[in-house]
Amino acid sequence: MNYYRKIPLKAFGEHSIIKITKTESIRHNYRLFSDMLAKTNTICACVMKSSIHGTDIRASAPVLYDEGCRHYFVEDLSEGIILRKLLPYSDAIIYETGGFLRGEENYFNDYNITPCLNCIEEIKRWNNYCKENGRRNAVIHFDTGMNRMGLPEYEALQLKENFEELTSSFEIEFYMSHFYDIKSDDLSSCFKQARRLEKFLEGLPKRPISFHATDSAVMLRDKGLNYDMARIGIGLVGGGPSINHIIDPTSEMSVEYYAKLSQVKKVKKGDTIGYAGAYTAKRDMKIALAHVGYNDGYLRYLSEMDKKPIGAYMAVCGIKTPVVGKISLGVTTIDVTDVPDELLKDAVCVEVIGPNVDARVLAEISGCYEVFGSLGRPNVKTAEYTEIEIEKLSENENCMHH
Amino acid sequence: MNYYRKIPLKAFGEHSIIKITKTESIRHNYRLFSDMLAKTNTICACVMKSSIHGTDIRASAPVLYDEGCRHYFVEDLSEGIILRKLLPYSDAIIYETGGFLRGEENYFNDYNITPCLNCIEEIKRWNNYCKENGRRNAVIHFDTGMNRMGLPEYEALQLKENFEELTSSFEIEFYMSHFYDIKSDDLSSCFKQARRLEKFLEGLPKRPISFHATDSAVMLRDKGLNYDMARIGIGLVGGGPSINHIIDPTSEMSVEYYAKLSQVKKVKKGDTIGYAGAYTAKRDMKIALAHVGYNDGYLRYLSEMDKKPIGAYMAVCGIKTPVVGKISLGVTTIDVTDVPDELLKDAVCVEVIGPNVDARVLAEISGCYEVFGSLGRPNVKTAEYTEIEIEKLSENENCMHH
Repeated sequence: MNYYRKIPLKAFGEHSIIKITKTESIRHNYRLFSDMLAKTNTICACVMKSSIHGTDIRASAPVLYDEGCRHYFVEDLSEGIILRKLLPYSDAIIYETGGFLRGEENYFNDYNITPCLNCIEEIKRWNNYCKENGRRNAVIHFDTGMNRMGLPEYEALQLKENFEELTSSFEIEFYMSHFYDIKSDDLSSCFKQARRLEKFLEGLPKRPISFHATDSAVMLRDKGLNYDMARIGIGLVGGGPSINHIIDPTSEMSVEYYAKLSQVKKVKKGDTIGYAGAYTAKRDMKIALAHVGYNDGYLRYLSEMDKKPIGAYMAVCGIKTPVVGKISLGVTTIDVTDVPDELLKDAVCVEVIGPNVDARVLAEISGCYEVFGSLGRPNVKTAEYTEIEIEKLSENENCMHH
Repeated sequence: MNYYRKIPLKAFGEHSIIKITKTESIRHNYRLFSDMLAKTNTICACVMKSSIHGTDIRASAPVLYDEGCRHYFVEDLSEGIILRKLLPYSDAIIYETGGFLRGEENYFNDYNITPCLNCIEEIKRWNNYCKENGRRNAVIHFDTGMNRMGLPEYEALQLKENFEELTSSFEIEFYMSHFYDIKSDDLSSCFKQARRLEKFLEGLPKRPISFHATDSAVMLRDKGLNYDMARIGIGLVGGGPSINHIIDPTSEMSVEYYAKLSQVKKVKKGDTIGYAGAYTAKRDMKIALAHVGYNDGYLRYLSEMDKKPIGAYMAVCGIKTPVVGKISLGVTTIDVTDVPDELLKDAVCVEVIGPNVDARVLAEISGCYEVFGSLGRPNVKTAEYTEIEIEKLSENENCMHH
């Protein structure tokens, strides 16, 4: 008795893949976090990077604004410009975390995007720009051990020594840093980073603090690490730091993917399947093609499930169908042996991510949420729908219990 | 004395990544293959799938037509529709190999795309369609051992038994199959597949034959496997089956990628870098950020070069800079220790793929050309140029020897 969504053939049109963004789930997840954070008086900000992990920010940005979100984070300037056009200039604050890069100064000003300054050079450049163009805000990002973005200790000291001069022409809205290991069980590195940040900030004017990645495990497991602003990222689409650490049992997946199905075929025990003969059938099997491949963002790394501790799978009519052999550019071979012929013959498509395929499993195999972004990027093969649009197309017959 | 391309800051605009498609290199590579194939009277067809591995088919399709190419292969219907709008209806033949899927019949007809029929069900459906809508062409695809697409042996027998009835209303333009292992040294599986195809075709009307993947090793190493039509795929962009099997020493890379550079930072021996502290500095180092990450198609799988036999690298001013630590969503940390400070301070960007970073090395790490397609997909972070456009922007100072 698996719940599955029945997609009508006509929904595909000339496309092989369908993406369904469930904006109401994004709304639900946002509420979940903002209610939780209200208790500790922590601001709930939304990380919109990668178009919220491949969903549709044109649909979700206004919904998040409606729900009261006023703090948005993007990874890159170009994303910030797109988001700015979707949100009011007056009170929606957009922060860019990826770096205040040379040559981008006027864009930040024109689109009213607040830079997160990651090094002394960026601080100097923004300060000079503001001196000439008027006072603006900024965030200062400290590197407390990740060794990626932000001021390392020696630059934090430089900032402290020349604070007045370096920040004369802009306001510091808050300080931030980034946890580099939220997946470990004891969070010891997080506490070490928090202590280090506090040390960096000694002697600097007091401002609110925000740590990246507080949306994930940390937020629930140790409220002491939340500080003044928590930034909800993968949690907005229903993801979590690992399959074992769901952020909240009522959080909802905000995106579903389906791919056309074709060519059911019998294969004998001992036959090899796909490139390099990398998979050997362990029994007589039925296989089929799902028309999504690595070029569509269904990562090659999800191949050869038989050689990995956890295997990637899709679902047909709510029944799990493991990925077999190497994923091709545009198609993936799946094992449909367990799907009865009477269901298979009418099956139009395969569920790639959806009610029966938890994206967290795919993320666990890849080691990160790469697959969300890669499947979600613009693709000529993909038709995009909101949940309401697809339900209309399906004329109320889309949700079935089997 | 490394050659490298100097990109002016203004070329980036609001973007962090630049893609340069070198259409003249695609032309050069096509000529290389078509000249080679002319000797054996083999048709040289072009595989345009994934927009020729992430380049720009709007620029290259007309050039290939100019050069005399009349046979084009796409992977998916949606790609075929885009290509059809770029090529004359009259004599440019577009074949779709990914499957003649249910619901797509009218599109194939309307856009004059020739389906490669992959199973009896597809043959029946096309035959019925042609019966009602007029005689059309098709290709029949046999599965000679890959167990992915095409008629397996038992369906090949069905075709033989009911040939007249099954193919009454369309013309078979040629027969095709697909080699599944061109990377092995002895090509024994290729010869096995070729013999199997010949067996499948016994008793069927004679038609030309084409094997997939003949553009790669097979074409050069064994002309006996070329048959009547060879389909040039990765060779068009300068790729090859492996770093050790370059298709031709004069073939040229047809695409270059550059990403903005920021935040040069000192790291001490023993420090960890990036997520999960996965990389430990083996010496005092200088690191920097390249503003391209897994969400842009620089696959997460290229991370942790220190744990793999071949490591991924980029280049700054023509000097190799290895990837260190886990690749992030939007940025990658690189080791710039070997780049002198006086060069680094003026460096605007990092070469991701280009004269100093052979894409074949990245393909070798991933096991396939996934990175071409993933970097090449539409991306808000990427500004796209032709080589002529970027050279104009650079005012003749783009090519430097150092």
